[in-house]
Amino acid sequence: MKAARYYGKEDVRVEEIPEPEVRPGTVKIAPAFNGICGSDLHLYHHGPIPPAPSATEPHPLSGETLPVVFGHEFSGVVEEVGEGVEGIAVGDRVAVEPFMVCGDCPACRSGRYNLCARMGFIGISGRGGGLSEHIVVERRWVHPVGDMPLDQAALLEPLAVAVHAVRHAGADRAAGQVAVVGGGGPIGLLTAAVLHAYGLRTIVSEVSEERRRKAEESGVADLVVDPSKRPLADAVREATDGAMAPFAFEAAGVGVVVDQLLDSLAPGGRLQVIALHTEPYRLDIMGRLTLQDRVLSSCAGYADDHPEAIRLVQQGLVDLAPFITSRIAVEDIVELGYQRLLHDRGEVKILVSMR
Amino acid sequence: MKAARYYGKEDVRVEEIPEPEVRPGTVKIAPAFNGICGSDLHLYHHGPIPPAPSATEPHPLSGETLPVVFGHEFSGVVEEVGEGVEGIAVGDRVAVEPFMVCGDCPACRSGRYNLCARMGFIGISGRGGGLSEHIVVERRWVHPVGDMPLDQAALLEPLAVAVHAVRHAGADRAAGQVAVVGGGGPIGLLTAAVLHAYGLRTIVSEVSEERRRKAEESGVADLVVDPSKRPLADAVREATDGAMAPFAFEAAGVGVVVDQLLDSLAPGGRLQVIALHTEPYRLDIMGRLTLQDRVLSSCAGYADDHPEAIRLVQQGLVDLAPFITSRIAVEDIVELGYQRLLHDRGEVKILVSMR
Repeated sequence: MKAARYYGKEDVRVEEIPEPEVRPGTVKIAPAFNGICGSDLHLYHHGPIPPAPSATEPHPLSGETLPVVFGHEFSGVVEEVGEGVEGIAVGDRVAVEPFMVCGDCPACRSGRYNLCARMGFIGISGRGGGLSEHIVVERRWVHPVGDMPLDQAALLEPLAVAVHAVRHAGADRAAGQVAVVGGGGPIGLLTAAVLHAYGLRTIVSEVSEERRRKAEESGVADLVVDPSKRPLADAVREATDGAMAPFAFEAAGVGVVVDQLLDSLAPGGRLQVIALHTEPYRLDIMGRLTLQDRVLSSCAGYADDHPEAIRLVQQGLVDLAPFITSRIAVEDIVELGYQRLLHDRGEVKILVSMR
Repeated sequence: MKAARYYGKEDVRVEEIPEPEVRPGTVKIAPAFNGICGSDLHLYHHGPIPPAPSATEPHPLSGETLPVVFGHEFSGVVEEVGEGVEGIAVGDRVAVEPFMVCGDCPACRSGRYNLCARMGFIGISGRGGGLSEHIVVERRWVHPVGDMPLDQAALLEPLAVAVHAVRHAGADRAAGQVAVVGGGGPIGLLTAAVLHAYGLRTIVSEVSEERRRKAEESGVADLVVDPSKRPLADAVREATDGAMAPFAFEAAGVGVVVDQLLDSLAPGGRLQVIALHTEPYRLDIMGRLTLQDRVLSSCAGYADDHPEAIRLVQQGLVDLAPFITSRIAVEDIVELGYQRLLHDRGEVKILVSMR
């Protein structure tokens, strides 16, 4: 079968590999659409880092080394179900929650499997990926999506990231309150969409004009702010009659955005960091947290969040269609995918079609 | 009347000043005992910083400049009640919540008066203090304590700090869980006492042997650890069968203790910083928060926490007696108070008597 495999820095090859076979407890899926994720971009442009294996160091759970099939944000159609699989039938549309976890570290035992000490991702760490004509996945990770369009279902994975962050911050129970989102990339926009679905007023702060326009046109931002033109805190103060925001979400991965968002919080407010910060952040604990009874929290991935993400879309509370900005064939993934995303701020999610 | 007044760095004078008169809505109190607080020490040894006024810059709410009467952790007996005062009678034992707040900033309007933009303290910012023979205080800030001994009632103010922090962290609803407290000074010990009262298992981390002994002997620590002898995280791992702690509290004001406590948290755990950090803290957001779904929060003072602090003592859930380590006369406050506290790790709370 055809698959796109990751060999290392700037080396992704579309090639023929053996077709996987269904086993007891697993589901065989024909992937339909794959979203390109920031981590795919990073791996492509900068080379393998965990949870990707290297050419010599296998991933601890998959046991595989490079190459691995790429693609972890994907939807598809069930082709075959293994022995003992219940609740899923051939022909069902599904989204895959692309985890592999150990099941017996303290995090796994406490139900927080997203924090598994040896965690990996299907489509990054081995066990196949969405960028192939067929994949076999354990039943646990396969979520039926009803009649949801398959292109939108490919966005459920990043939507689950946003759902997890919003719930971790407790903003899912804050209808009518104000939340500021720093960064209008795919995760920032989806976070604004989830907050909007839960009835919050959303302010999206983003320097790119194209991204601000997308935040407005998609209806997920009640207000957009360009923080390079005006201090974000001033805009939030004006928009809230001086009360400031009880919630903020950081989806930029930049220390200065963390500062801007902390300064936009109301007394007792909470900032949830979603982006990955690879640089240490210089935190004024007393000034920015203590003297304001504030909370700074962060989280990774999702755990039992896919059902809620699916519900939000099925009930029309989140419309994923505006965030699908391009569709390309797997053969064009480097040029029209990894290259274009580096420069084109008008792109939100590029879907790679396997059919 | 006699009062101890703060004039600035290393300058506290016991002298005669005019006796204040009760006004409508206020209560006249004869202070009994004053605890010496870390902020008193700092002001004495290093000179005035806000919320203390300077000799020329008045505090925005009190309008007073130096000198001010010192003493904000105090108990006393009601001598007279002003017109319109209800629920308090002459002869009542009381503790004073020593705030002055503006009442109309966003924090005050949201009930978080501890975060008032112009906040001050009785006994630091003006309006008299506990180190005097008489003080007149607005009814709002006067809390009857029933038959609680007056020496213990002087510790209700720092106990309210601990109650506020434990509630802010949500640990008041975590009976049976584990909490690590970093720092065994007065606030660390009182925090451990509150956690213990709420049914948590407490681990106190402290380098001073005398403070570790106090934590054990007072019964507030189920386990004590010397983090200079053994990594705290290792001790917590062993004590929790690998699960680590869902809660930690930082009462040391030192960045390395923040690191040690974050590393002792379970997946999804929460670290509450109580100490004031005057130095910026270098936070590895991704490693220490994101990849563990962790929460870092902090808070200041108390807001509507005195009633709960009083309840914990009245119901015998917190015993304050072990934390009163010395009693001195106001005339000895410098030598036996401010000087001794700098060096003697065996001291927890020194009470200054006004009678």
